[in-house]
Amino acid sequence: MIKINENYQKLSANYLFAEIANRVTDYQKNNPDQKIIKLGIGDVTEPLVPSVIEALHKGVDDMGNRESFYGYGPYEGYEFLRSSIADFDFKKRGININPEEVFISSGAKEDTANFSEVFSQDTKIAITDPVYPVYIDSNVMFGRTGSYQNNHYQNVLYLDCTADNQFKPDLPKEKVDLIYLCFPNNPTGQVATKKDLQMWVNYAHQNKALILFDAAYEAFIQDEELPHSIFEIDGADEVAVEFRSLSKTAGFTGTRLSYTIIPDKVHIYDQEGHSHQLNKIWLRRQSTKFNGVPYIIQKGAAAVFTDKGRSEINQQIQYYLDNAKIIQEGFRSLDIEFTGGDNSPYIWLKTPNSISSWDFFDLLINQCQVVGTPGAGFGRCGEGYFRLSAFGNKNNIREAMERIKKLKIC
Amino acid sequence: MIKINENYQKLSANYLFAEIANRVTDYQKNNPDQKIIKLGIGDVTEPLVPSVIEALHKGVDDMGNRESFYGYGPYEGYEFLRSSIADFDFKKRGININPEEVFISSGAKEDTANFSEVFSQDTKIAITDPVYPVYIDSNVMFGRTGSYQNNHYQNVLYLDCTADNQFKPDLPKEKVDLIYLCFPNNPTGQVATKKDLQMWVNYAHQNKALILFDAAYEAFIQDEELPHSIFEIDGADEVAVEFRSLSKTAGFTGTRLSYTIIPDKVHIYDQEGHSHQLNKIWLRRQSTKFNGVPYIIQKGAAAVFTDKGRSEINQQIQYYLDNAKIIQEGFRSLDIEFTGGDNSPYIWLKTPNSISSWDFFDLLINQCQVVGTPGAGFGRCGEGYFRLSAFGNKNNIREAMERIKKLKIC
Repeated sequence: MIKINENYQKLSANYLFAEIANRVTDYQKNNPDQKIIKLGIGDVTEPLVPSVIEALHKGVDDMGNRESFYGYGPYEGYEFLRSSIADFDFKKRGININPEEVFISSGAKEDTANFSEVFSQDTKIAITDPVYPVYIDSNVMFGRTGSYQNNHYQNVLYLDCTADNQFKPDLPKEKVDLIYLCFPNNPTGQVATKKDLQMWVNYAHQNKALILFDAAYEAFIQDEELPHSIFEIDGADEVAVEFRSLSKTAGFTGTRLSYTIIPDKVHIYDQEGHSHQLNKIWLRRQSTKFNGVPYIIQKGAAAVFTDKGRSEINQQIQYYLDNAKIIQEGFRSLDIEFTGGDNSPYIWLKTPNSISSWDFFDLLINQCQVVGTPGAGFGRCGEGYFRLSAFGNKNNIREAMERIKKLKIC
Repeated sequence: MIKINENYQKLSANYLFAEIANRVTDYQKNNPDQKIIKLGIGDVTEPLVPSVIEALHKGVDDMGNRESFYGYGPYEGYEFLRSSIADFDFKKRGININPEEVFISSGAKEDTANFSEVFSQDTKIAITDPVYPVYIDSNVMFGRTGSYQNNHYQNVLYLDCTADNQFKPDLPKEKVDLIYLCFPNNPTGQVATKKDLQMWVNYAHQNKALILFDAAYEAFIQDEELPHSIFEIDGADEVAVEFRSLSKTAGFTGTRLSYTIIPDKVHIYDQEGHSHQLNKIWLRRQSTKFNGVPYIIQKGAAAVFTDKGRSEINQQIQYYLDNAKIIQEGFRSLDIEFTGGDNSPYIWLKTPNSISSWDFFDLLINQCQVVGTPGAGFGRCGEGYFRLSAFGNKNNIREAMERIKKLKIC
């Protein structure tokens, strides 16, 4: 008899963003005339920049001619793109990353989820609370956790991020093997200093642990003192993997391209304690289960790593950060506490009158027709908080804030 | 301490096609002046057809304008594409498949590999021997098999496909839960009649088993009596999932788009014996670990399901089938036994003088500069066989066969 993976049944409920999408669809069905402003899922709204569009057209043309046609590409991505990334994102900032350490993929979501597969079943994981749900859900599906009780999965170490620690996780008191970190953080918008990251790199060295570092929002960093990559930290190239994405950097949420950096020096261990190069293990995983990102998309992505492309993209980043300022000003005027928005596209606010985060979600959609993300969807410590994204049309963001200001509760 | 997934260490060696690529690279490095003809990996060589190119350009243009820009798409793919597929591939052939039963993905390799995740750890699987390596390797990585001994993994039922049974698997004598079938077959090129498939559908009903049916090569079927889909078989819509791909159908190996059909009526069971809709389980998997196929690529793919696009594609299919005829004629003239090539792009031949299939691989590359795929790479029953693909430039195929004819061993 064909049976379901029993671990799937441990999953608490719907995937958060699917649940939000369902509620929004229901609301719109019942209120077809209302204009909803979506600041929930964190989806970009500005079109791809001209350099990328031009490169994509060129890529399409290549595929239409026998002489320039591309069939199966390398599992790890084309050299032209991996080299550009190594140069532009890393060597230019004094970080020594080679093209062989770069793996092109179709999304940071896909890669952070799939990465959970390559480690031993008994790997002890640490995640922050609140957290991007994919890190934990993929581990639940893999069978690395116990059941769901009181909004936490058993056998997972949660690192509380609250106002008390400025939403920055403290080091675990017990030993863990795998640590998920995300800075600038989703959902809190908090950033990490070099000192913060050095603390984690030291912990990883001391405990032979591995850090999975999600840098999907690094392009929003404005403060020149802040690190864009964990590989700016001494010793990180032995204990960390970094995930980057063009989704938020260059408006690729619907175009799909990310890249994962696995330095040659990162090793993991077998049961006998022998070390293995993680880079090679991941390539084996990808060559078996993945056939690469479309050539056309890789061609378009390469334009992001040119001076012209980057200058166009920086204007978009600035546009979204200006939106973040509008949201910040709105909440300041309402005396509502929040973090984020300076070096990140997310604003993480305390719900007014401490109402529950799903109640605030319902209130906002029903009374303001504004969609945000309830903090509780990101974990136990997210209760009483709410995430708004700065992605969107500026006029819509302004309108959303005007509507929120009229809410009696605020 | 961070440890490797111990199941990865069971994997016999390199992924087959990565191993072939390595040997070819080595040969080319040592013989830079030799012109290699690659008939190994089964990669298309004809460019994308004009209708697809036009639609891709349109898709790119859409992404360059705020009004027509697309961010995150539905996890299961855009309705415009799922509808076209349901109509064109299924309803037109009298098969009742709805858009809600179609899931767009980035490759049949990705989906057949990822599908192994959603079932219980103790699922007993049956695969044919020879087999497309991804089916078995993904199950090894998942921990569903024992160790590798004598070219077989323990705890897997292998269904021998030999000249004795015309390369069509017999029903298992024991009970299995999950059966992987592929017709037209990769690597043997063998096809299945409706009667053949009915036998498997009946088995699945009797044993509450599930069939994963890989129809990646259905577009090559010329014989009007042969089924293109397992859903042409009575009762299949309760016990089968079908994987389709544009890779070979429309030259999408480097463009990446596939689709998986999971009828609403397919259910799998939990430990208590309660049934669950597989369709919903897969959507939960995809929404957690996948963010959809690029909008641009889906837009291009939609052109495949139009009369104009299909007529252009049919010419390409015919081109490759004409290549297959050239290969067939070559081997006939050498009195070498083979199957395939009539309704499939693959020719599966017996190695001359019964030399081993990797020896034949080395002989072909060294003496003819022709790359094929050693049968042993597909399983124990593949030893003594060799796969040549009909994908390639017609002149190259002719030249390859002329070179092979001059081989003394033939």
